[in-house]
Amino acid sequence: MTDAASLKHWIVDIDLQPPTLRNNTADSERLLEAIGEHLGKRPIRAELAVIRGLPARLRQTGYRARCVLFEDRDRWLLLDVLDPLHPTAALGLAVDLGTTRISLRLVDLQAGDILAEQTIDNPQVAVGPDILTRIHHADRPGGARDLQARIIQALNREIKALTATAGYRSTDVYAVSLAANTAMTHLLLGLDCRWMIREPYIPAVNRPPVMGTAELGIEVHPAARIFVFPNVGSYFGGDLIAGVFFSGLHRREETAILVDVGTNAEVVLGNRDWLMACAGAAGPALEGGVTRFGMAAAEGVIDRVRWDETGGDIAWHTIGEQPPRGICGSGLIDLAAVLFRAGMIDIRGKLVPSRCGGRLKNIEDIAHVVVAWAHETATGEDLMISQADIDSLIRSKAAMYTILETITLTMGMSLAELPAFFVAGTFGVFIDPVSAVTIGMLPDLPPKRFIPLGNSSLEGATRLLSAPGSLAEIDRIRDGITYLELNVNQDFMNRFSAAKFLPHTNRGLFPSVDF
Amino acid sequence: MTDAASLKHWIVDIDLQPPTLRNNTADSERLLEAIGEHLGKRPIRAELAVIRGLPARLRQTGYRARCVLFEDRDRWLLLDVLDPLHPTAALGLAVDLGTTRISLRLVDLQAGDILAEQTIDNPQVAVGPDILTRIHHADRPGGARDLQARIIQALNREIKALTATAGYRSTDVYAVSLAANTAMTHLLLGLDCRWMIREPYIPAVNRPPVMGTAELGIEVHPAARIFVFPNVGSYFGGDLIAGVFFSGLHRREETAILVDVGTNAEVVLGNRDWLMACAGAAGPALEGGVTRFGMAAAEGVIDRVRWDETGGDIAWHTIGEQPPRGICGSGLIDLAAVLFRAGMIDIRGKLVPSRCGGRLKNIEDIAHVVVAWAHETATGEDLMISQADIDSLIRSKAAMYTILETITLTMGMSLAELPAFFVAGTFGVFIDPVSAVTIGMLPDLPPKRFIPLGNSSLEGATRLLSAPGSLAEIDRIRDGITYLELNVNQDFMNRFSAAKFLPHTNRGLFPSVDF
Repeated sequence: MTDAASLKHWIVDIDLQPPTLRNNTADSERLLEAIGEHLGKRPIRAELAVIRGLPARLRQTGYRARCVLFEDRDRWLLLDVLDPLHPTAALGLAVDLGTTRISLRLVDLQAGDILAEQTIDNPQVAVGPDILTRIHHADRPGGARDLQARIIQALNREIKALTATAGYRSTDVYAVSLAANTAMTHLLLGLDCRWMIREPYIPAVNRPPVMGTAELGIEVHPAARIFVFPNVGSYFGGDLIAGVFFSGLHRREETAILVDVGTNAEVVLGNRDWLMACAGAAGPALEGGVTRFGMAAAEGVIDRVRWDETGGDIAWHTIGEQPPRGICGSGLIDLAAVLFRAGMIDIRGKLVPSRCGGRLKNIEDIAHVVVAWAHETATGEDLMISQADIDSLIRSKAAMYTILETITLTMGMSLAELPAFFVAGTFGVFIDPVSAVTIGMLPDLPPKRFIPLGNSSLEGATRLLSAPGSLAEIDRIRDGITYLELNVNQDFMNRFSAAKFLPHTNRGLFPSVDF
Repeated sequence: MTDAASLKHWIVDIDLQPPTLRNNTADSERLLEAIGEHLGKRPIRAELAVIRGLPARLRQTGYRARCVLFEDRDRWLLLDVLDPLHPTAALGLAVDLGTTRISLRLVDLQAGDILAEQTIDNPQVAVGPDILTRIHHADRPGGARDLQARIIQALNREIKALTATAGYRSTDVYAVSLAANTAMTHLLLGLDCRWMIREPYIPAVNRPPVMGTAELGIEVHPAARIFVFPNVGSYFGGDLIAGVFFSGLHRREETAILVDVGTNAEVVLGNRDWLMACAGAAGPALEGGVTRFGMAAAEGVIDRVRWDETGGDIAWHTIGEQPPRGICGSGLIDLAAVLFRAGMIDIRGKLVPSRCGGRLKNIEDIAHVVVAWAHETATGEDLMISQADIDSLIRSKAAMYTILETITLTMGMSLAELPAFFVAGTFGVFIDPVSAVTIGMLPDLPPKRFIPLGNSSLEGATRLLSAPGSLAEIDRIRDGITYLELNVNQDFMNRFSAAKFLPHTNRGLFPSVDF
């Protein structure tokens, strides 16, 4: 580790001693041995295609070689040998293959810079928006191949476009680093995933082998390799391993926590000595999937709500400063916090008619609160949140808090001790921790302890491209994770019930929520 | 090494613990870990194609797996998983890829038995009988590809025929083990060999990577791998490494010697602690390439000559008991010994007219000795050996002896101390060591110390198929060989001159030649 960690990039320039009668080692071994010295004597392999071009290349460059390296488990790989005086580009591609969205990022392997980035819809959504539908589709004749082809075609199209945008060719890409949840990983690799959804929920593979991209039909450099992040099981995927890798949780002396919030709340607690993970249904409220006006972050979506002291009323902000047409997770949490502070909802989350004033509307016997008036919105009708929406949000936040509480309790800790709380995903970027604490969704820590990670899956995949020698570290994260099955017993239900209040039945846990 | 050496065959039956909710390791890792335990924790890899079929296969067999393994450097490979109750065959193919002839041998990887064998002409002979012509041909546009295609096509044709003969399919072959000299190795792999014939004579590769056979277009099982024996340099190839591997020279406590005789005499001296090698031109006399009637061993070729005490004359034997049409290396050495013992040639190898009687003929002022009379031969004309032929043989035997003497002297030893003298190739099988000693070609050791190895290149390749875990041993042989450049200085020339007598100027070196 230590020696190869001193390698700054995957590209290494090597000056060789030219051969003589007394030093007549073959071209390939001469170069591989010199690279091996650079890597702290680690084994390194060159494929036939590289060896084939080597004698001419070395004699043309006077035995100077710009080597494109990559790492496989147990050994390193020499992918290509460029002329240091007339080098062609050597790029890497980081991919976050999400269930709904795919993010691609192009990296210069020589300089480490990010060159271009793109996010597209996952074309498998046309088959089914959720993973379960796709796994069933994969079980039909030709289904797995169809799902795999959709991803590969989309990747190839985007790689072509992305490299062209940045002024390169797709064949300049030598390394692909891809993170995805376990099901998406299996669908990408064309692996059988029918046993992942049947007890005892067994994936085909935990650590996909480092492969030639050609084997998957990914159209980049013919020698290119793809690393797919390993998973802990069917419900804890490589996207989360990439997130931990990016956060550095596994390198810290002090215990910290990482949370990735989606339909599931996925949590990792730990430090450099141990890692514990669990996941639980947090409900879709936070993804904007349930409320009538809920939607994912996009132009015209309310992402911030605050209490306007001057007007003594609700004030909102939309992405792109457009007239509002919906509200996303961070907006919803802000809104709940604002309503709670204003007394418009009580500690059970129920709308208080006396405090809501004109913003309260009853529609089909269900109380609603108007967030934006018809004359302000994009649709020309009132943008409202119903009591049912708020109830749903409260169930989600309670589930989230209960999961956090359970995993820390299991380790004999309290949430208040945590010196760092990593929040992964776009959720973590947009959410206002003060609002989340106010409603008791996140524990009552000083705001600066909450560290948003952004798309930590994509960031982790990117990090591999600029941190040679990280495979063992990533595998250690995976191997070190103890997965805690959430046992929904009476204790859990009691904690859940206590968390269904705002911010919590035990107000002592939330000293900062002091109104 | 030690653990995997306990593995008897490349096929291993594994019984797995079925997964449970508490033991939910993925199918691939579950199997690989169990195999790893078998191999003394060595790393093992499964390709995507194997992982793809694994979930269904394991559930079909109740988690019993017949695993087809192979070894790569740094790690093992899981090539396929068969059903132990309904297994298909798993075969290996050993190949000796010679400059003139190709030998193939089919081995049952499960039982270790040899199933079938075949030897064919190397189809590259049509391009050029010698390596140099072929290397020049490879340098022309399309030349390398043409030479490679000739070999691959021949291999595919013979693999199909050989497997069919033995009642199998070519897709039953999972492992190919191939030994060849350095040039043939390069031509097989399509590697640039133009620098092998230019000073300082550098090959493209010393240790070809273990490859998928598909990469070379060899039509066997799609997951099959090919191991190509490593070389020490342009003039010391994998065929010789395979020979040492087969002989066990590198495992013996006492120093022994191995000689492979062809146009070059290739010699390895050593023991389990060190190995020294050299090669030198021995002249083509021993391959039947020079004398008018000289030919390789075949039907109707004189392979044995003795002195018939009853008739007081030369007596010969032909292969297949056919009328003679030529004489091969072993016949020629016997003949020289017989002529020498009978006084028909003197210690300088000159024909003695007074002792040759009617067998002496002068043609164009050159003395000839008749070996078989016209009425006895297949051609209807006298089968003769000329003084020039004998001179050529004596130069060859002198060169051979000088090389043997030089390498042992370099190590401060004498030839007489050697407890074992391995003679590789068909030469070693046919040659009568007593005759070779009589003319001073081989040192004067007791006959039982000479151990013929047969086609040691093919035998070494075969051994790998029945000795899992040998790659490191083979690489250690290669890495351990010190190559001695024969320095043709005055000392060497003096030794060569002394060896040009029969058996030697210093008769004390040949006490058994006591007539």
